[in-house]
Amino acid sequence: MRELMVNLGERSYPIRIGSGLLARAGEQLLQAGLSVKSPLLVVSDDAVAPLYLDGLLEQLRSSGFRAASCIVPAGEPSKSLARFEEIMTKALEHGLDRKSAIVALGGGVVGDLAGYAAASYMRGIRFVQMPTTILAHDSSVGGKVAVNHPMAKNIIGAFHQPSLVLYDLDTLKTLPRREVSSGLAEVVKHGLIRDATFVDWCIDNAERLLALDAEALGYALYKGCAVKADIVSSDETEQGVRAILNLGHTIGHALEAVAGYNELHHGEAISIGMIGSAMLGVQLGAPQEVYLRTREALGKAGLPVSLPEHFDTDRIMEAMMHDKKFGEGKMVFIVPTAIGEVEIRQDIRQQWVRDIVERLKREASWP
Amino acid sequence: MRELMVNLGERSYPIRIGSGLLARAGEQLLQAGLSVKSPLLVVSDDAVAPLYLDGLLEQLRSSGFRAASCIVPAGEPSKSLARFEEIMTKALEHGLDRKSAIVALGGGVVGDLAGYAAASYMRGIRFVQMPTTILAHDSSVGGKVAVNHPMAKNIIGAFHQPSLVLYDLDTLKTLPRREVSSGLAEVVKHGLIRDATFVDWCIDNAERLLALDAEALGYALYKGCAVKADIVSSDETEQGVRAILNLGHTIGHALEAVAGYNELHHGEAISIGMIGSAMLGVQLGAPQEVYLRTREALGKAGLPVSLPEHFDTDRIMEAMMHDKKFGEGKMVFIVPTAIGEVEIRQDIRQQWVRDIVERLKREASWP
Repeated sequence: MRELMVNLGERSYPIRIGSGLLARAGEQLLQAGLSVKSPLLVVSDDAVAPLYLDGLLEQLRSSGFRAASCIVPAGEPSKSLARFEEIMTKALEHGLDRKSAIVALGGGVVGDLAGYAAASYMRGIRFVQMPTTILAHDSSVGGKVAVNHPMAKNIIGAFHQPSLVLYDLDTLKTLPRREVSSGLAEVVKHGLIRDATFVDWCIDNAERLLALDAEALGYALYKGCAVKADIVSSDETEQGVRAILNLGHTIGHALEAVAGYNELHHGEAISIGMIGSAMLGVQLGAPQEVYLRTREALGKAGLPVSLPEHFDTDRIMEAMMHDKKFGEGKMVFIVPTAIGEVEIRQDIRQQWVRDIVERLKREASWP
Repeated sequence: MRELMVNLGERSYPIRIGSGLLARAGEQLLQAGLSVKSPLLVVSDDAVAPLYLDGLLEQLRSSGFRAASCIVPAGEPSKSLARFEEIMTKALEHGLDRKSAIVALGGGVVGDLAGYAAASYMRGIRFVQMPTTILAHDSSVGGKVAVNHPMAKNIIGAFHQPSLVLYDLDTLKTLPRREVSSGLAEVVKHGLIRDATFVDWCIDNAERLLALDAEALGYALYKGCAVKADIVSSDETEQGVRAILNLGHTIGHALEAVAGYNELHHGEAISIGMIGSAMLGVQLGAPQEVYLRTREALGKAGLPVSLPEHFDTDRIMEAMMHDKKFGEGKMVFIVPTAIGEVEIRQDIRQQWVRDIVERLKREASWP
């Protein structure tokens, strides 16, 4: 088992990564200071619950916890205020009190939804994450939780740190290949912004990662979480440097807004976004290698490195203008200057971005 | 103009109390560091908006701010997730960004609702309170914001401090008498928990307060805010001492849950609750004077000091068991030991509380 501390003063918490962790969940919760006197609520989705929920509930009960559950449909539409209210109702019915915890068993959607519920119930109770996807390694560090509004993603939320993250690698074995690649997008991103050596490692070990080799995966998740934890520790509420974690997300979110959810998964959208950012970086003076290595790392992870032609550039630009990262009308972009280094640029012209979007369509076709 | 700083480190903010403050709102917002580049959203209700909203919007625009508004029906039912979502929609439509603020123009309901919206929009933007009731002096200090769930009050919320509170005493002139008394309940409460001299002052000046004498009111609001600010500063997220602010609220919330909103306003409910707490205090050894002075202070402020007989004791007890202040099944009560002093008791037996509820019905009738 690997353990990583996310250092946030009073709100510091451990991320534990390894096999068989769900089978020791009760003991881990007790160690984290939770009391069996206060009931738990486990939130999961209808794809994950059939695989792991009963086992987890039984395990928690055998440790003396009272635990109820709330199952939402798998997929992004569950990040809604309606589902949020359902969780509140369950929490009240089950008598959750101020010392209770809400446990998220699932991927990023479940984590974000359950996390915002934990942030809001009684103005904030404890939150425990048990991620079951690779992508969730990203959302499990940093305490950003949210639901969507029909007009914008992640617009209703909070900063709420978990008390504990239990990353059971066994739960990743059932991930579909497309989800594995999508998750690796954020892993590669963490290399691209802070750690060139880790980008090399990702390229060299792409096949092992895609084959879900436990040792490789454990290391990749640990490294990804470590880079993010380091950045988050120095800027908990995204006043400054934390923004670099948005590499690829400005274009990526716009693509997600324009595409149907099934056409483009989150990791795929930000993969294309990171390719766009690399192009922008080269245009602004970074060596050509930045583009080539970015493309190699993402391509080897099975991710798209170009934009399907039918995407409408005007609609993408419009979605970008709606994105919350544009304070005061300027375009803010995270732009790589080298592999493992990025800068926050406030001076990016709309026309440059439009050109990049067009160029993304002319690159080699969908992998 | 009186000014009070609420000391919360980085989240410190001023409360300004005086006449004519709304007419200087734009200048005050600029002083508080808000930028005219980021739009504002003013939330108000349909009782307050016709009196002050247009003037405020015009004033803000004349200072260079773009300001939209969102008007909800007056009254507790507006503290709902549905209204919360409406505010989110307005905020998105109006293009609020991370540097924007949501302004609450109204009483406690508007403050709680708009504050929770500000806490959640983009994971937290700035919040400015412009209270128009006496009761709101209480909710404008401390950053507790929330909406209700059909099963429980204030169960969905956050701790989110305002950047500025502008208390324009002129807006209190239109308050109905019943609302004036209801507001004075929290003023008196702040004396009862911390300041015996101020309780004496409240008794001596009850008539001036009920007549909305600006000088008396300004002083009373300043003192009430100061006591609360002092307690909140030492315990921002209610881990310990802050709980003493709940004097009268355990019974009070239960009464509100059982009564219709119009039968019992918040201040009336907690007035009866504080009488009950005083009875409990005397029963546990405090001098009889604690009960008599509490009763005098609340009675002179035009508040009820007994419970109408038709209230069902079983339903009140049940509502209390649902209340969020019962961690781990024990009954926690704030109990006065003298005028100006209270303690947190964790050992209160249900039967004692039931006896008190019964006794509250036998006291002198509704004022």
